[in-house]
Amino acid sequence: MYARPPVVILAAGRGERLCEGEKKPPKPLISVLGLTLLERVILSCKGAGIEEFFIVLGYREAEIELRFLEWGKKYKVSITTVKNQDWKNGNGTSALACSPFLSSAFLLVMCDHLFDPQVIAQLIAEGKDGEACYVVVDRRTEQVFDIEDATRVQVQDGRISAIGKGLEAYNAVDTGIFLCWPFLFDALRQAQLEGDGTLSGGIRRLAKQKRMKAVDLGEHLWLDVDTPKALKRARRLLMKRLVKTDEDGFISQWFNRPLSVRFSAQLVTHCPLEQVTPNMISLASFFLILLGAFLFVFGGYAVSLAAGILCQIGSITDGCDGEVARLTFRTSRFGAWLDTLFDRYGGAAIVTGVSYGFWRFHPTPWVWLGGIFALTGFLLASYTKKEYAIRYGEGFPNKGVWAKLIKRDLRIFMVLLGAILGYPYFFLLAIGAVSHLGIGRLFWQVYKGRQTVTR
Amino acid sequence: MYARPPVVILAAGRGERLCEGEKKPPKPLISVLGLTLLERVILSCKGAGIEEFFIVLGYREAEIELRFLEWGKKYKVSITTVKNQDWKNGNGTSALACSPFLSSAFLLVMCDHLFDPQVIAQLIAEGKDGEACYVVVDRRTEQVFDIEDATRVQVQDGRISAIGKGLEAYNAVDTGIFLCWPFLFDALRQAQLEGDGTLSGGIRRLAKQKRMKAVDLGEHLWLDVDTPKALKRARRLLMKRLVKTDEDGFISQWFNRPLSVRFSAQLVTHCPLEQVTPNMISLASFFLILLGAFLFVFGGYAVSLAAGILCQIGSITDGCDGEVARLTFRTSRFGAWLDTLFDRYGGAAIVTGVSYGFWRFHPTPWVWLGGIFALTGFLLASYTKKEYAIRYGEGFPNKGVWAKLIKRDLRIFMVLLGAILGYPYFFLLAIGAVSHLGIGRLFWQVYKGRQTVTR
Repeated sequence: MYARPPVVILAAGRGERLCEGEKKPPKPLISVLGLTLLERVILSCKGAGIEEFFIVLGYREAEIELRFLEWGKKYKVSITTVKNQDWKNGNGTSALACSPFLSSAFLLVMCDHLFDPQVIAQLIAEGKDGEACYVVVDRRTEQVFDIEDATRVQVQDGRISAIGKGLEAYNAVDTGIFLCWPFLFDALRQAQLEGDGTLSGGIRRLAKQKRMKAVDLGEHLWLDVDTPKALKRARRLLMKRLVKTDEDGFISQWFNRPLSVRFSAQLVTHCPLEQVTPNMISLASFFLILLGAFLFVFGGYAVSLAAGILCQIGSITDGCDGEVARLTFRTSRFGAWLDTLFDRYGGAAIVTGVSYGFWRFHPTPWVWLGGIFALTGFLLASYTKKEYAIRYGEGFPNKGVWAKLIKRDLRIFMVLLGAILGYPYFFLLAIGAVSHLGIGRLFWQVYKGRQTVTR
Repeated sequence: MYARPPVVILAAGRGERLCEGEKKPPKPLISVLGLTLLERVILSCKGAGIEEFFIVLGYREAEIELRFLEWGKKYKVSITTVKNQDWKNGNGTSALACSPFLSSAFLLVMCDHLFDPQVIAQLIAEGKDGEACYVVVDRRTEQVFDIEDATRVQVQDGRISAIGKGLEAYNAVDTGIFLCWPFLFDALRQAQLEGDGTLSGGIRRLAKQKRMKAVDLGEHLWLDVDTPKALKRARRLLMKRLVKTDEDGFISQWFNRPLSVRFSAQLVTHCPLEQVTPNMISLASFFLILLGAFLFVFGGYAVSLAAGILCQIGSITDGCDGEVARLTFRTSRFGAWLDTLFDRYGGAAIVTGVSYGFWRFHPTPWVWLGGIFALTGFLLASYTKKEYAIRYGEGFPNKGVWAKLIKRDLRIFMVLLGAILGYPYFFLLAIGAVSHLGIGRLFWQVYKGRQTVTR
């Protein structure tokens, strides 16, 4: 039970800085990359295993509540609406409105603060005792966007000693992510009696009682989406996180990924998510590759060039499945597994097409032997890394030039380059040879490392 | 320190039931499958992380000690000889001879009791406190070999309440594997004063003081190698353990493995171990496959048959690397990794050879396309399982007919069968098709499983 406390989401405020006028949707329903802010908060919590939500509504409540039925079903979570008539008197009143529902630990988050599921997991793990409430704080104060508007805190010995927007002496920033116990409500009531209806007011009183502790955010991401500028920044940062600097090969990092991220962003922004599933994107990119591979069979400069371009487009869009999945909380092991298989079959198709095309003009068995040579190199370069991961219980260190030379993005790009220069088959052979050398190099590297470890 | 206590090995006795006469080597130096009994005991302990040994010698001590220098270097362990002039008065005196060297926890084992490294690891894990000594007991009393001669124990509430060879009421058997603290020596001295020089005498006194606890052996293997008959049995059981019923495919289980185990046993018994390393065997089996693959190129019934047989021999000996490694405590992640790569390259070579051979008599590109089809199936069947293991954090359940249909042993056997019937290429295509179907089937199975889990 405690490992999955319910979550209270405060979504009653007006958020006038982000959405002026009635024409725009209310703040919790503003979309970033295909999902509303409120959905992103729900799904981040769900990513940490949480399934029970109390959402406090006030301003334009009817519009917002309308969506809960759909979300509850789609995301398999339980959502309870808590209406706060008193929302204009500060967000403390919204938290207080949930008190009848909560008798044990609960999480408290804002509808306009985005964060990683790991933040919630960490908060739950660290905030074990029931003697204090916990707030996640960001110590990277210099990097905080819009520090003028941020709620500043002073942390001493793991406790919050002061909190407030205008605080002069501060060493961290309140991320608006809390783990609370029902005694928070007493503090809120007391603050209200003294004329302060804000959540910070209640927190300040807990801090005075030394019942407010801090949990460090570390390097995780959180974003306060308060203004149109912050919204744009959120979009940019969410996209930026899709780039996997560690894992991506040369071509992927500098060419494929920048394009695929933009394409993914457009996809999730403009298409209904149900219609663009990650697995469908995997499949579409696979078919592009198959089509390109088939075109290679006909040979000739123009057709080969078109084939190479198709394959490269397939290689670019191949990044989109994972990106769309991560942007919309739809990653799955099955999807990742399926995608790698498509990648390998696609590689086999390209080798076959290019070899066949070349053989038609140079009908000697050596052409086929070369094709088999390249294909074996491609498939075994991938295979060897997987085997390493299994035997050694850790991914193969994807660093250094050689690790990047035996990646798929480069293989496909080399075939395109070959098509541009008129020699796709020879470029295929060359990159096949590089793959075999890369495999040998991997083994040599591990063999050497093994010696130094055991001696 | 405590996680790796030193080990005392009692090797002072005469062991006359196993080695009568001076012509035979003394008991600790009797070999089973390439290693002496004493080496097996040392290596089992080393497998549990232990590096410090006190070996008590008495009967024919000079002969035995002569080997320690070599073993210490070869196995990277520290061996201290403890000489017990008094060995004829019972094995308790041998244990007592170590008392000057030991001031904290230590393990105590017999030179003629073989066991798995896991037994030691379990004993160390369970025997945490310093208030009692621990003995590993085997509760499968009905299965114990030579129960007449075994040291019987009565276990009550986790403690030894009685111990002795002739015990009438007993519910377990002493395996001769102990975790002790120096107070054992007091008990041994007391027993000796009362005229009992055996280890059991000391243990009996500890049991009376309720300071002797039992750790359950569970399903692990231990063997008391006391007589020529027990020696034969040890050899048989060590060989039997090489069969991996769960992992082996059809052909491997019923044909390859029985042959390879016998061959491995001969290898380790008759060849110096330094000259037969597991990696060398991997390499030799790989070359047999390469040679077979090359022979297929020439085509013709007789040559193809020879080629198929060579490949099958390669497939059989391919089991020997792991078997020899396990029999002689030389398993390594690197070796396992290298072996799988050889397997895949060998598969590619066979496909190439068979396709080339068929193409020479039927020169159409379809032959090569078929070859690429089969090769892709072979390599991706293996690849898919590895990817599954990585994504799902567990090996693919290797059960059911389909899992066994896409294993290497069957592929190579099918090529041999094809060669026998005169159609190696078509059998290659068939088993290639089975591989692709098997991949599809794996995905379908997981996809279905996924649905039931999430819904």
